[in-house]
Amino acid sequence: MDKGRVEAFSDGVIAIIITIMVLELKAPAGDHLNDLRPVLPAFAGYVLSFVYVGIYWTNHHHMMHAVRRVDGSVLWANLYLLFWLSMVPFVTAWMGEHPLATAPAVLYGFVLLMNALAWVVLQIRYLRLEGPDSPLAQAVSSGLKEKISPLIYVFGIAAAFVYVPVSLACYVIVAAMWIIPDRRVERQLGMGA
Amino acid sequence: MDKGRVEAFSDGVIAIIITIMVLELKAPAGDHLNDLRPVLPAFAGYVLSFVYVGIYWTNHHHMMHAVRRVDGSVLWANLYLLFWLSMVPFVTAWMGEHPLATAPAVLYGFVLLMNALAWVVLQIRYLRLEGPDSPLAQAVSSGLKEKISPLIYVFGIAAAFVYVPVSLACYVIVAAMWIIPDRRVERQLGMGA
Amino acid sequence: MDKGRVEAFSDGVIAIIITIMVLELKAPAGDHLNDLRPVLPAFAGYVLSFVYVGIYWTNHHHMMHAVRRVDGSVLWANLYLLFWLSMVPFVTAWMGEHPLATAPAVLYGFVLLMNALAWVVLQIRYLRLEGPDSPLAQAVSSGLKEKISPLIYVFGIAAAFVYVPVSLACYVIVAAMWIIPDRRVERQLGMGA
Amino acid sequence: MDKGRVEAFSDGVIAIIITIMVLELKAPAGDHLNDLRPVLPAFAGYVLSFVYVGIYWTNHHHMMHAVRRVDGSVLWANLYLLFWLSMVPFVTAWMGEHPLATAPAVLYGFVLLMNALAWVVLQIRYLRLEGPDSPLAQAVSSGLKEKISPLIYVFGIAAAFVYVPVSLACYVIVAAMWIIPDRRVERQLGMGA
Repeated sequence: MDKGRVEAFSDGVIAIIITIMVLELKAPAGDHLNDLRPVLPAFAGYVLSFVYVGIYWTNHHHMMHAVRRVDGSVLWANLYLLFWLSMVPFVTAWMGEHPLATAPAVLYGFVLLMNALAWVVLQIRYLRLEGPDSPLAQAVSSGLKEKISPLIYVFGIAAAFVYVPVSLACYVIVAAMWIIPDRRVERQLGMGA
Repeated sequence: MDKGRVEAFSDGVIAIIITIMVLELKAPAGDHLNDLRPVLPAFAGYVLSFVYVGIYWTNHHHMMHAVRRVDGSVLWANLYLLFWLSMVPFVTAWMGEHPLATAPAVLYGFVLLMNALAWVVLQIRYLRLEGPDSPLAQAVSSGLKEKISPLIYVFGIAAAFVYVPVSLACYVIVAAMWIIPDRRVERQLGMGA
Repeated sequence: MDKGRVEAFSDGVIAIIITIMVLELKAPAGDHLNDLRPVLPAFAGYVLSFVYVGIYWTNHHHMMHAVRRVDGSVLWANLYLLFWLSMVPFVTAWMGEHPLATAPAVLYGFVLLMNALAWVVLQIRYLRLEGPDSPLAQAVSSGLKEKISPLIYVFGIAAAFVYVPVSLACYVIVAAMWIIPDRRVERQLGMGA
Repeated sequence: MDKGRVEAFSDGVIAIIITIMVLELKAPAGDHLNDLRPVLPAFAGYVLSFVYVGIYWTNHHHMMHAVRRVDGSVLWANLYLLFWLSMVPFVTAWMGEHPLATAPAVLYGFVLLMNALAWVVLQIRYLRLEGPDSPLAQAVSSGLKEKISPLIYVFGIAAAFVYVPVSLACYVIVAAMWIIPDRRVERQLGMGA
């Protein structure tokens, strides 16, 4: 089955991305529990990014479940998504070192936005390949979350220039919105089965 | 088969976690065998953490063997376990740099405790999905080790405030207790087969 | 199926190579958007190398699709290719730290050249194993891109001694040339199916 | 199939080990080709270790091909081998920083020796599980290379105290001896098929 290897490679890359972020958490210099305090913002950023990468993995899992084959164009759309996911550890590290600074919060939102757009591109390529009557097409017909998320990211990026906590709140809200896996696809597949 | 990808992704993350810890072992500055001496505590910590991650992998292997399907809720329970496993390299590095210090030993025990609880959560989600008559349910009916381990961790954490070697001994004891793979599941599956 | 594990191992190695390059992107010291400027050359190098590794992955995917079995000799030809791919992060890091310097551009081209030759070796080993009437043999009969790429790399290496941007342009051109996955194999397999 | 996940996890760990060694190759400080010179010993060590890990992977591939099932005891024998393989990047880094120094050459040989013994342990566990009439048992009946390799390692370790190049030559000789994949298993399986 052709799609198996796309899943395996994506799993590999996503597994590495989600895990190498923890390499950015440097062991504190001192040996007291208080020495953990400066690590806390980086830890919070790691948790948020872990959740985001986890969201992409579960949704990738759901989408691939509904997909029946791959071609060269979806291979590259998939690599394009993996590229932007691979930027997450970089921006997480920058934000962890400068919590509440404007520029890292802007770049973090920008990378989330590029991931969201790459996801839409991948979905479109798969829909074109699967056709309008495919289980996938019926499952993602509304795409409400896909439309709202980029707007919240853009708002979050703009908010970072005014008051960074609002910006971070935006990113947390989108994560919370998505942490519920795509019930539409699950329901659709459940009905079809 | 749906569960295959959960196994593949978990294998990827666990393989990375178990391997990146060795990146924390810095090559000694000098070129004499004596120069290895300061690396020894970090090496001992690496061995212990390698065994712990190995335990989770073999038990994950056994549990998934008895499982027949997955849903969105077990995907996230699985990610929650992987999150706490991904904290192991961080605390191993901290403990390796400050052997016999209280705070790293406390945090190490805390992370082990969170892993143990995440494991119980994952088991409960799977049991709910599989039902009370499933092979998994019959295999893990007593769950004695799951109940004792957290208690020993809590004792180990408390002991770290008094005398760290006792704390470390607790963590070694739980590892030794678990290194024997879950015979219950193996026996159960053997009987059913 | 024997070839499955070669795919899995290659996927693992390529996934790690493509992802660890991002570890070379150090978070900037400052917290302004301007502080990203010194990271830009390294980022551009990362994009180029990501595309190159992505090309090798998609073409590996296509080739393995047409392949029916493996033997000891292709295992080592495959490892030889993976070895040269594993050199990409090293030369990408060097070039990122010294953009527009001659030596890193020369070494980058040399590593690309060795990868291209390793790819040809792997293709030859598979063709020998599959035989002259195999789908793979018919699919790669002309091999025009395989013949031109090394020439452009050699020209790019030579150009690095005169004017580095020409050298880099050569590497970008070959990437652009290959980013289109091997239509020959796809067409061939499509026809046969 | 039960053994699939042991292969997948081993592939993951071995893929990471073989790839993270390249992280030890630091990009040279300067931007001249001459600046590569101090990296050469580390590069040579990387090549040797890459070949060794590659040997273990191909032989693991061959052994698993002949194996029909796994149990808890082979899971741990497999983890024990992966543990010693995970020590290879550490000793490679130490040897790369101190080429021709006695202690790193001793430790490098020691880690190779422990890997060889772990391999024998894994083989014995599988032979016990498969039984004396299994394809695996017939394939590895003589085990000449398994017996000679540890002796050469021990000689290499001793030689490191006298003249390090002899020690390194020993390690190169064993690698050359093993780079030919286990023809016995291949032949046996070919005959049986």
